[in-house]
Amino acid sequence: MTQFSSPAALRAACRSGDFTDNTSGQAPGHVQCNIVILPSRWAADFLRFCQANPKPCPLIASSAVPGDASLPPLGNIDIRSDVPSYRVFRDGKFVEECNDIKHLWSEDMVTFALGCSFSFEEALLADGLDVRNVSAGVNVPMYRTNIDCSPAGPFAGKMVVSMRPFAAADAIRAVQICTRFPSVHGAPIHLGDPAQIGITDLDTPDYGDAITMKDGELPVFWACGVTPQVALENAKPPLAVTHSPGCMLVSDLRNSQLAVM
Amino acid sequence: MTQFSSPAALRAACRSGDFTDNTSGQAPGHVQCNIVILPSRWAADFLRFCQANPKPCPLIASSAVPGDASLPPLGNIDIRSDVPSYRVFRDGKFVEECNDIKHLWSEDMVTFALGCSFSFEEALLADGLDVRNVSAGVNVPMYRTNIDCSPAGPFAGKMVVSMRPFAAADAIRAVQICTRFPSVHGAPIHLGDPAQIGITDLDTPDYGDAITMKDGELPVFWACGVTPQVALENAKPPLAVTHSPGCMLVSDLRNSQLAVM
Repeated sequence: MTQFSSPAALRAACRSGDFTDNTSGQAPGHVQCNIVILPSRWAADFLRFCQANPKPCPLIASSAVPGDASLPPLGNIDIRSDVPSYRVFRDGKFVEECNDIKHLWSEDMVTFALGCSFSFEEALLADGLDVRNVSAGVNVPMYRTNIDCSPAGPFAGKMVVSMRPFAAADAIRAVQICTRFPSVHGAPIHLGDPAQIGITDLDTPDYGDAITMKDGELPVFWACGVTPQVALENAKPPLAVTHSPGCMLVSDLRNSQLAVM
Repeated sequence: MTQFSSPAALRAACRSGDFTDNTSGQAPGHVQCNIVILPSRWAADFLRFCQANPKPCPLIASSAVPGDASLPPLGNIDIRSDVPSYRVFRDGKFVEECNDIKHLWSEDMVTFALGCSFSFEEALLADGLDVRNVSAGVNVPMYRTNIDCSPAGPFAGKMVVSMRPFAAADAIRAVQICTRFPSVHGAPIHLGDPAQIGITDLDTPDYGDAITMKDGELPVFWACGVTPQVALENAKPPLAVTHSPGCMLVSDLRNSQLAVM
């Protein structure tokens, strides 16, 4: 896979159809975003859902007006083509995956860009921590919890979390590091006993890949960007588009710009 | 016990011999300090010990010159009388407790004031967390660990930790809050399995009182100001004076002034 250092060059390759892959490790140092695109009638409720659930749904940018395919805060973007791979949902059900959504676009569509764990993983790695899903070269394991999101109109559902195992001192360090980045899920929401948040078996994640925990490690859980997809499935809008898992919108923003201190 | 709101008034009562008690809850909002007083020949090594072990030994102030009993950064203080109760050690062994140390003072003595957990407990309580030793009205349980401090000259020993139990989400919040206060022990150094730091039985602390953990709580461990006392016992200086446990020097500094952000 081509390695891009420039977000603009990567997006150009997405736009031309030359890049349709996972964006993990692309354009290092730059913010990658979860994408949700909805008809305008559903947009206000989804915005309220994000505001009520900032840890799983940290909103970084949204369309200025319906039908506007640009996202100036994130760079020179055409949201109809600049994500490597899209997933299309009708009435809350997945129907197809595609590499651009020009055929689905209308003057009624509203885009939301949400923070993604790639940003805080980069900060953890820069501090010398072993981020197991990265060192093992697999997708992070994700689990549906028993934690209810705050509902907003039709948007509701359980929080999905990602899990990374750490020794206790590293878990404490991870809390410190991630606290600096509230717009990319922020501090963990739980650590230790998975059963306390309704997870019965760490070895069978609901999304992503299982990973191996070492002796003495604690599982550490972060609110996850799959949460809004679950809320979408529950809300059943007639049309919704998201990025495909791992195939994010790569923005011009730098991860360090998201640090609150 | 008289409740003082002013640190200066409390210190005046110590100076006159009217207050000889525990300072927990006194002069709310103000920084209370662990005190170590040593002959000047031992001072440089102890200072290096503090610098090498900032979590258990967070140095807030020290004498400008040997024999100077004032500590201007902390208020109008006479360290020979302004601590409610002192402990005297000779050759590393406890020999007596007293309410002033004028009879022991000389032009050779050097004072060190170290941060104390009362400051971060106040911040945890202000955030609505249940600090179990406070709500139960007992001394915090403290344990000798298997963690070696970095030695400096004759000063060496294992780290002593204090333990407060929290539900996982509150433990994460406690890491965030205490990170703001590095000069009063800062973030916890461990959480979860006590055996990983050499603690075999939480119900039998080495210092302080045992406390009850609730179902699902994690033990959270902070570096503790008893650590320098253990190092003193190991170093065996001919004379050393500390505060008596819980009977701290109450300074004019405000806890909020110690926050790094």
